[in-house]
Amino acid sequence: MTSPAPRREDNSRMDYQDTLERIHTALKPLIGEGKVASYIPELANVAPDQFGMAVLNIDGTVFSVGDATKRFSIQSISKLFALTLAFQREGDSLWTRVGREPSGTPFNSLVQLEAEQGIPRNPFINAGALVVTDMLVAHHGGGEGAQDALLAFVRSLAGTGGTGIQINGRVGESEIRTSSRNAAMAHFMKSFGNLHGKVGEVINAYCHHCAIEMNCIELARAACFIANKGVNPWSGEAVVDPSSAKRLSALMLTCGTYDAAGDFAFRVGLPAKSGVGGGIVAILPGECGICVWSPALEESGNSRAGSLALEMFTSLTKRSIF
Amino acid sequence: MTSPAPRREDNSRMDYQDTLERIHTALKPLIGEGKVASYIPELANVAPDQFGMAVLNIDGTVFSVGDATKRFSIQSISKLFALTLAFQREGDSLWTRVGREPSGTPFNSLVQLEAEQGIPRNPFINAGALVVTDMLVAHHGGGEGAQDALLAFVRSLAGTGGTGIQINGRVGESEIRTSSRNAAMAHFMKSFGNLHGKVGEVINAYCHHCAIEMNCIELARAACFIANKGVNPWSGEAVVDPSSAKRLSALMLTCGTYDAAGDFAFRVGLPAKSGVGGGIVAILPGECGICVWSPALEESGNSRAGSLALEMFTSLTKRSIF
Amino acid sequence: MTSPAPRREDNSRMDYQDTLERIHTALKPLIGEGKVASYIPELANVAPDQFGMAVLNIDGTVFSVGDATKRFSIQSISKLFALTLAFQREGDSLWTRVGREPSGTPFNSLVQLEAEQGIPRNPFINAGALVVTDMLVAHHGGGEGAQDALLAFVRSLAGTGGTGIQINGRVGESEIRTSSRNAAMAHFMKSFGNLHGKVGEVINAYCHHCAIEMNCIELARAACFIANKGVNPWSGEAVVDPSSAKRLSALMLTCGTYDAAGDFAFRVGLPAKSGVGGGIVAILPGECGICVWSPALEESGNSRAGSLALEMFTSLTKRSIF
Amino acid sequence: MTSPAPRREDNSRMDYQDTLERIHTALKPLIGEGKVASYIPELANVAPDQFGMAVLNIDGTVFSVGDATKRFSIQSISKLFALTLAFQREGDSLWTRVGREPSGTPFNSLVQLEAEQGIPRNPFINAGALVVTDMLVAHHGGGEGAQDALLAFVRSLAGTGGTGIQINGRVGESEIRTSSRNAAMAHFMKSFGNLHGKVGEVINAYCHHCAIEMNCIELARAACFIANKGVNPWSGEAVVDPSSAKRLSALMLTCGTYDAAGDFAFRVGLPAKSGVGGGIVAILPGECGICVWSPALEESGNSRAGSLALEMFTSLTKRSIF
Repeated sequence: MTSPAPRREDNSRMDYQDTLERIHTALKPLIGEGKVASYIPELANVAPDQFGMAVLNIDGTVFSVGDATKRFSIQSISKLFALTLAFQREGDSLWTRVGREPSGTPFNSLVQLEAEQGIPRNPFINAGALVVTDMLVAHHGGGEGAQDALLAFVRSLAGTGGTGIQINGRVGESEIRTSSRNAAMAHFMKSFGNLHGKVGEVINAYCHHCAIEMNCIELARAACFIANKGVNPWSGEAVVDPSSAKRLSALMLTCGTYDAAGDFAFRVGLPAKSGVGGGIVAILPGECGICVWSPALEESGNSRAGSLALEMFTSLTKRSIF
Repeated sequence: MTSPAPRREDNSRMDYQDTLERIHTALKPLIGEGKVASYIPELANVAPDQFGMAVLNIDGTVFSVGDATKRFSIQSISKLFALTLAFQREGDSLWTRVGREPSGTPFNSLVQLEAEQGIPRNPFINAGALVVTDMLVAHHGGGEGAQDALLAFVRSLAGTGGTGIQINGRVGESEIRTSSRNAAMAHFMKSFGNLHGKVGEVINAYCHHCAIEMNCIELARAACFIANKGVNPWSGEAVVDPSSAKRLSALMLTCGTYDAAGDFAFRVGLPAKSGVGGGIVAILPGECGICVWSPALEESGNSRAGSLALEMFTSLTKRSIF
Repeated sequence: MTSPAPRREDNSRMDYQDTLERIHTALKPLIGEGKVASYIPELANVAPDQFGMAVLNIDGTVFSVGDATKRFSIQSISKLFALTLAFQREGDSLWTRVGREPSGTPFNSLVQLEAEQGIPRNPFINAGALVVTDMLVAHHGGGEGAQDALLAFVRSLAGTGGTGIQINGRVGESEIRTSSRNAAMAHFMKSFGNLHGKVGEVINAYCHHCAIEMNCIELARAACFIANKGVNPWSGEAVVDPSSAKRLSALMLTCGTYDAAGDFAFRVGLPAKSGVGGGIVAILPGECGICVWSPALEESGNSRAGSLALEMFTSLTKRSIF
Repeated sequence: MTSPAPRREDNSRMDYQDTLERIHTALKPLIGEGKVASYIPELANVAPDQFGMAVLNIDGTVFSVGDATKRFSIQSISKLFALTLAFQREGDSLWTRVGREPSGTPFNSLVQLEAEQGIPRNPFINAGALVVTDMLVAHHGGGEGAQDALLAFVRSLAGTGGTGIQINGRVGESEIRTSSRNAAMAHFMKSFGNLHGKVGEVINAYCHHCAIEMNCIELARAACFIANKGVNPWSGEAVVDPSSAKRLSALMLTCGTYDAAGDFAFRVGLPAKSGVGGGIVAILPGECGICVWSPALEESGNSRAGSLALEMFTSLTKRSIF
């Protein structure tokens, strides 16, 4: 018979600072290995040898290491916030327009979209996030309204420290200029009746969402509501109900890290959402939000040092959802 | 700020009997809705209006309801045990021959197999289970050896109550007669060099694995080692190391319920493995093994009443991994 | 030993009038069976029970029957003329941007385009015609220049009788409003670097090309240069060299009738290009251009009565390329 | 206006000997370039620098050059004869089990087979030839009967010179040992109900058909019935009716040269069937059968020197079907 699991009270008192420092030290030789996203100059020019990590307990305690206060482009992590905001507006009817299954093919594939009649497999692939953005555009009177609403929402999730969060307009404009494939998907979904707004407006809003810049502490803080049964710990406000918070976690676990979600769940065992800017946000239900950032990527599009850091985190702390 | 989560000690004392009875009562009007698997007469003839459910605490406490002691064909649930046994033999080298990603297409698709050069996406789709069986055939001196080894393994996992577990030979032979698609996949993987034994022998062993018959209590009991950090609670023996047990859970969550794994994780939030015989095995890490059985299936191939029962279970108990 | 084939001299003196009348009589009960293209009102409102057919000998002799002087929307038949015009401008370098293989999937599929990195399989599927139009846009200083050039080209091919040929602007505008899928393909190819102009401009020109209206006699006349070794019989001008004319015929045979090209070659045995407006243009090398029109379509998108008429034509005359 | 086409009488008197010699001389530097099929030792060991070509007029005149009397493995060219024989037995009902469309994907793809529910696209891809062989197995009392019947049929088509044609048993056995992918397709089609015999027996017969050995003169001779309106010129017997002979030609043109059929039609313009042994059989309707052989292959699986030789043949003689 096994020894009993550590009690949760112990965990909430847990001091993760030492763990973060061990991770930082161990990974130092590897930081910068991999390839920085290069499809727009603004991302290509980011120095690959950067690394930051932060853990935010839902009681407000902060642990951090490295470049944890340096802002970076959150990219696809914005899909998590966009989905939450759209879910607040649409409720479960959202799921008639986007699925909840892992995609099983590279994140921007049109093949699946064709096979499934314009319904994206989940809200964390580009096609799904475009549908989610289309909902925000409808609810907020157009593309600019959608951008403003998402930025305000992310700031509120990040608490008092989040007031400085901005969209990098130059990154957003650059994204638009290289968004042919997203435009293809948007038009394609429109051909199936699953995009209601103007393609240009939806693409515009989507690209600006991706261009939000935050640092590890801000992102870890903004993710805490998911770990905290849907309640924003900094305002006490219910962002979503407890059941929806769990479901958001489930979605992150099965679909949050591109086509490597299965492998990520296997190795790390935490609900997470990654972006090609090198950031990964994760949560430990009931305890904390976590964010790691390092710009050099694995082939899957996830931060290489970031994935390893999270894997070390769950190994060292013996904490995961499994 | 939220109220603190219930302490684990409370949970291990939890009495699930009342919960199971509420589930049984609530679902009664729906039991039998859906379609019983019909590709072999032995499955087609099973009465659809049956329902059983069992929870096995890792301390040995048993809760059960309905037809929980009636044996049924475990079908794809055998993939979970075959994988564990093969992993004991092969270790991590197993993952060079089979992936860990959700399939994203129906469970017996050859398309994916072609695109990925004969490497099945995960060990819980048929192609992956055939590769796993091929390993067992190699390690146990042929198809019959593989069958015997798996049966002995499952019995040992089920503890003292498991000695009566048998393979239904008639079901096994029937499966073989309708296994053209599995034979196609086996030959196809052989053409890529990813199947080493004789196709006939592998198919034979595979079909007999699927024809193992167990009841809900036996299956819940046999799954407890995963909830118990890899240790068989009935023998004290380490089946796999704690880290591998977590990883097995992760795999069940992302790949265990056919092409509906995302939706299942979303609705239920427990690692699970289902079979077209109508059984679903799930675990709550650190606590218990769960098994529900009802033969009528959803389109996805998962038991309809079984899926609803597990969804109710996590709603009522507020227990899930998220 | 068989009797010798009829001498070509006999054929050029052949009187097809009787044949056309037999076809018309035989098909009368079937005319109107099938479904008129309905994605734009202008096509949906065309009466299905119309039928016309014309044969134009390269010596200028005209045979015709039914509604052979009634103009209709040539739709995809414009792809044949656009390709010829682009080939005049680009020569064989055209084939670096578009293939020459049958598509093997429905004519507007994005799957193939993804698998083959943005190179459409042939110039007669929509994606291929968009690339061809992109070339025309580049050569003629924009979308309007491309439209004007193609219209002038088609008029010249149709000879003195072709001066009245027009683009139906209302049809063109309607096409643009329902061109989401074409826009998706254009953006998608742009993401692969295989579309150089502005997507909106290319789509605009493409949709207006499809909206050209001609009658059977004009179309049969315009196709005669292919049967006549590349020389426009009405002007004596070499449109393309003899070898290219043969190759154009080969392309029509293997790719000219959507996903039914194999079946069409099998049943009819003539190089042909069809459109969803119900027109089909075919040629008998060395002899004549043929056009049949009837708006009701087979599932493949080819005119139902038109396909049968051509099949009867080759059966009755024992003339085909095989 | 163009000069009149050469009269057919001229052609039938045409002396192709000079043409063949010019082709042989021109191609000499290239013969052997490419890759010999290597999946079985018997094919891998064939010297790549061989080249033979023969033209057989339907009046019996023979023109030949190079290694035209050296036998080689006809491989997929056997699909042409198997189809003809099965068509004699089944008539048009054959087309309910196999399509007539170009495949659009590599010749052994299972993807298409899955998408189209076990109905192969045409009888010249492996899957289609397996269905055709299944028909022969049914009509001739088993696999050996099918082999014997096909061998006798090919001998009769080749006329008096064909009595020495044999199956190379060693090649046949080798093919069987590497036929995993064909076995996969056969089982897969069986799962759709489109294969009636025993998979092993069908594969066996199929592999032995591919192992027939013939030389260029024999093959050109055996193809003459297609050029001769379905009548075997050497026996006067009607092999198929004239319309079916034309349809066979159409099928060769659209589907006879693997995934390069469109390009082959474009460049060569003759109905043809190729094999990975390096042989290509073609016909000029009303005139002659042609066969070229050179073992080194293009990526498409067609003989490299063989394709070029046929392209030169139609360029020099200005004879093609277009």
